[in-house]
Amino acid sequence: MLMRSLVKFGSILLAIVVAASTPAFAAGNDGINAFLTQTAYDWNHGNLDAFMRGYENAPTTLYISSTKVIHGYAAIRARYASHYGSSMGVLSFSDLTTRMLGPDYAVVVAHWHLAMTNGTHPTGIFSLVLHHASSGWHIIDDHTP
Amino acid sequence: MLMRSLVKFGSILLAIVVAASTPAFAAGNDGINAFLTQTAYDWNHGNLDAFMRGYENAPTTLYISSTKVIHGYAAIRARYASHYGSSMGVLSFSDLTTRMLGPDYAVVVAHWHLAMTNGTHPTGIFSLVLHHASSGWHIIDDHTP
Repeated sequence: MLMRSLVKFGSILLAIVVAASTPAFAAGNDGINAFLTQTAYDWNHGNLDAFMRGYENAPTTLYISSTKVIHGYAAIRARYASHYGSSMGVLSFSDLTTRMLGPDYAVVVAHWHLAMTNGTHPTGIFSLVLHHASSGWHIIDDHTP
Repeated sequence: MLMRSLVKFGSILLAIVVAASTPAFAAGNDGINAFLTQTAYDWNHGNLDAFMRGYENAPTTLYISSTKVIHGYAAIRARYASHYGSSMGVLSFSDLTTRMLGPDYAVVVAHWHLAMTNGTHPTGIFSLVLHHASSGWHIIDDHTP
């Protein structure tokens, strides 16, 4: 009886641990790849609201363009809205390098490519610092010059 | 006698702990500021060997320019040597934002300014990911487009 109770308790405990360790995007490289895939998917569906859920909603979140540092989630969202509006194009990544910085942070470096409807193909290199919270991975520092 | 021995042992232990927690550049913001000051000092004295000690000597260290990702300490050093040689100019920083990523990592964003002997003043924004090891803070990811 005690044994059976312990097994049951162990199962509940395991279920809690599994639930706690599988938020929106799990920790580690697999979770980061899923996060980036979702980010590109949201962009490519012109869904700025969903895309912006990839950024940590905090005043400390930074976006670094080629000319300035933009402080805070609200200002970053406003910049995306004014720069792209309804014409966001198709986003893809290549040459991804991911490095974990302890269990809760990571830096991702990659080439990005945009295929715009007007035929232009802007491209560049970004580095993202990601933070893993209970709600999954979020960008806290986006350097896309 | 036992008490005296314990006090002595405690002092030795304290000395070891203090020695271990004060490497070249201590953890936290103060250590990072000291690290950046030293980095600029070494650059401004044209001392590339000392300047390069600011980078983690590893094949995983990245330097991201405006056009490419350079992998590894040796390749980063070679790029600095070929780009600057003996004419390194005077480096300064402004508008520093430092964010700790757990106890052992940090991201630093700042404007950089170079005053070259030929009168030009290149400027830009960098983001650095720093790692704190027993030998102090080191750059593991330098995005300077």
